[in-house]
Amino acid sequence: MGDFFTEMRVRYSETDQMAFMYYSNYLVWFEVARTTHFRSVGLDYNKIEKERKLYLPVVEANCRYKAPLRYDDLAKVYTKISDCGKSRLTFDYKIYLNEKLTTTGFTRHAFINEKGKPIPIPEDIRTHLLQ
Amino acid sequence: MGDFFTEMRVRYSETDQMAFMYYSNYLVWFEVARTTHFRSVGLDYNKIEKERKLYLPVVEANCRYKAPLRYDDLAKVYTKISDCGKSRLTFDYKIYLNEKLTTTGFTRHAFINEKGKPIPIPEDIRTHLLQ
Amino acid sequence: MGDFFTEMRVRYSETDQMAFMYYSNYLVWFEVARTTHFRSVGLDYNKIEKERKLYLPVVEANCRYKAPLRYDDLAKVYTKISDCGKSRLTFDYKIYLNEKLTTTGFTRHAFINEKGKPIPIPEDIRTHLLQ
Amino acid sequence: MGDFFTEMRVRYSETDQMAFMYYSNYLVWFEVARTTHFRSVGLDYNKIEKERKLYLPVVEANCRYKAPLRYDDLAKVYTKISDCGKSRLTFDYKIYLNEKLTTTGFTRHAFINEKGKPIPIPEDIRTHLLQ
Repeated sequence: MGDFFTEMRVRYSETDQMAFMYYSNYLVWFEVARTTHFRSVGLDYNKIEKERKLYLPVVEANCRYKAPLRYDDLAKVYTKISDCGKSRLTFDYKIYLNEKLTTTGFTRHAFINEKGKPIPIPEDIRTHLLQ
Repeated sequence: MGDFFTEMRVRYSETDQMAFMYYSNYLVWFEVARTTHFRSVGLDYNKIEKERKLYLPVVEANCRYKAPLRYDDLAKVYTKISDCGKSRLTFDYKIYLNEKLTTTGFTRHAFINEKGKPIPIPEDIRTHLLQ
Repeated sequence: MGDFFTEMRVRYSETDQMAFMYYSNYLVWFEVARTTHFRSVGLDYNKIEKERKLYLPVVEANCRYKAPLRYDDLAKVYTKISDCGKSRLTFDYKIYLNEKLTTTGFTRHAFINEKGKPIPIPEDIRTHLLQ
Repeated sequence: MGDFFTEMRVRYSETDQMAFMYYSNYLVWFEVARTTHFRSVGLDYNKIEKERKLYLPVVEANCRYKAPLRYDDLAKVYTKISDCGKSRLTFDYKIYLNEKLTTTGFTRHAFINEKGKPIPIPEDIRTHLLQ
C-alpha cells in the first residue's frame, strides 16, 4: 500500500455482542478513509458533490476479515487507488492494528452526474487522484 | 398509550459488547415506529417530503432505559401523539417486551419547509394525526 | 434463488445525503435475512450462540449495487446457501424491489467455538441448513 | 462547559436524506466524547469493563437539536460531569461548529457490576472523575 492512511478508533457503537467490530462497520471505515485520501491529494469530496454535482456511488464492495477489531482499538486504514478507468475507480484498503494486518477490502465506484448518468472522470480530478 | 404500535426485532448489528441493544438505536426504532404511525393514520411521510417538500426534523429526543433489549428480542413500540401545537408535534413512545415496559421516550418535531423555515402544520395533516 | 426471503423496508436512518440506502447497510440487511433463513429451517441462531457457544463470524463479505434502494422502499432479500463445507458456509443474497434485481452479494462464514477456534459444522445444524 | 472536548467530523454514513446528521448519531458522538473524557482524566473505560467488570449503561439520554450538522463538518463535543451521586453519574454535552452551539444533551448512567446490580461508584474512579 502507499502512504495514505487514516487512524481510527473502534467506537462502542461499532461493537456487537461477540465483542468484535460488527462487520458492516468496516465499510463505514473504508468511506472515512476514502474521504481522507481525497483530502490528502488536494480534493474535497464534499465540494465535488455540492459544487460540481458529481457523485461517486459504490458499485461493488468487498471485505475480508482476517482478525477482529475490538472496542477502543486504534487502527490504521491504508488506502490506495488500484484502478482508475475512464469512468470507474477502485480503492483498495488494508487495516492494520499495530503491525498486524486484520482486514483487506476494495470498493469500486462510478462517477455519475446529478441525473445518475455515468460520466468520464474529470481530468483535474484524475490528475489529483493519480499523483 | 393508544392503539398504534410497530413490532420490531433486535438486529445483531444493533447489539453492543454489553450484549444489549446499543442506546442510540432506540431512536432509530422510534423513527421507524413514527413512520408506521403516519401510515396507520393514512399519511405517507415519504410523500410529504418528496411531493410537498415538508420536513419534520427532530428538535428534541429523550429516552429512558428501564430494562435492556437483547438480540432477537421481538418487542412492540407503542406511539402516541401527546402534543400537537401550531407548528410543533410531540410523539411519546413506550417499548414493551412481552408485557414488560422496557423503554419510554419522546421526540419533539418542527414542521419546516424546503428553506428550513418553520411552518404551521397543514390542516389536512393535523386532521389525520389527531383522528 | 430458493424460497427463502425476508421482506424489509428502508429506514430513514439507513439513507444518506445522496438519498440512497447507505452502502454498508446492505450488509446489515444480509444479516437480518440470514437470521430469518436460520429460523425458516428450524434453527435459532441466538440459541446456537447462547446455549451451544458456537459462533458464525463473517470471514468475507461482498456486495454489488446495481440500482439504489430509497427511503421507505419495501424490498425482498432472498437468501440461499451456495456452499457448505466442513467448517465454512456461504450465503448468497439477491435483493428485489418489486420485480427488479437491485443488489447481489455473498457472505462467507466460519464456525468457531467459544475460544475462537474453527470447528466442523455440527451434523444437526448441517442437516437443517441443507434441507 | 469545562475543558474537555473531542473533535469529530461528520461521516457520510451519519448523514440522512435531509443531508443532516441523522438524529440518533448524536448519541454515538456523545459516547465517543465520554470515552475521551475518561481517558483525559486518566481512566480507561475499556479496562474498567474488561478488568474490573464494571459497566456504565445509560439510564436516560436527552438531546436538543438547535442547528444541523452536515457531512464533513468538523465539530467539537464538549463534555462535563454535571452530577456524580452515590452510584449514578450525569454527563452534559455541548456540540459547537466553529463558534456556534448546535446541540446540547445529557446522559445519565448507573454503575453496575457483572450481575447487573447497581453498585456505589468506586472511590478511585470518583476521584479521577471529579478532579
